[in-house]
Amino acid sequence: MAVQMQLRRIIISEIQDEQVIMLKEVEGDRTFPMMIGIFEASSIDRRVKRMVSPRPLTHDLINNTIEKMGGELRDILINEIREQTYYAVLRIMLDGEIVEVDCRPSDAIAVAVASGVPIYVAEDVLEEVCGGE
Amino acid sequence: MAVQMQLRRIIISEIQDEQVIMLKEVEGDRTFPMMIGIFEASSIDRRVKRMVSPRPLTHDLINNTIEKMGGELRDILINEIREQTYYAVLRIMLDGEIVEVDCRPSDAIAVAVASGVPIYVAEDVLEEVCGGE
Repeated sequence: MAVQMQLRRIIISEIQDEQVIMLKEVEGDRTFPMMIGIFEASSIDRRVKRMVSPRPLTHDLINNTIEKMGGELRDILINEIREQTYYAVLRIMLDGEIVEVDCRPSDAIAVAVASGVPIYVAEDVLEEVCGGE
Repeated sequence: MAVQMQLRRIIISEIQDEQVIMLKEVEGDRTFPMMIGIFEASSIDRRVKRMVSPRPLTHDLINNTIEKMGGELRDILINEIREQTYYAVLRIMLDGEIVEVDCRPSDAIAVAVASGVPIYVAEDVLEEVCGGE
């Protein structure tokens, strides 16, 4: 089971390396924070503010590569938490099958925001982070 | 005609946004500088210094996506300069054909360094930047 999430807030600090994004359930109230690097945070922030870049940025390049190779990014899934580290996959439809590519959640969310696909979190990850409902 | 280049030097400045990388012909002496952002410069620098990351970084993710989708990154090509802006493509072998994906040269070089594929510059770009031989 996976739960669809949305980006609730991005907190960018000039004085810390780690930035914070808050994800919130689309059909519920559970939220959780993720620490991410400044590059991914800026990339997400630019996108949310609809700042247009004249040239494809790094996370656009991932999506452009998928499309040029005949695939379609379906969604991203944060599928695991292990020793306080989150893991994620890009889920790509290719020739009628889903191909999963392992990545850091921060990259996954930046790619999702750049390409407008849904963000999912596995129910057991959400329960572990937020506790039961 | 494309000329193979190698990364000669990375100059990272803490006080400027734009960083400099120098490319040099593999079989010749022409060199040229490119201005790139701090994120791409850091990504290239980490790789050159063989700093290992426990998790795939953004430019690794591009290569992992290509491989998972059944392609093979062959090389990158800086193929155009227009109004002092460089353009580049990733060249991916997929089902026996080359697929080209447009990107910024800084991303292209970061991907090339991350995955160990050759860096090419079109001869006419090199001539425009360096003058004739």
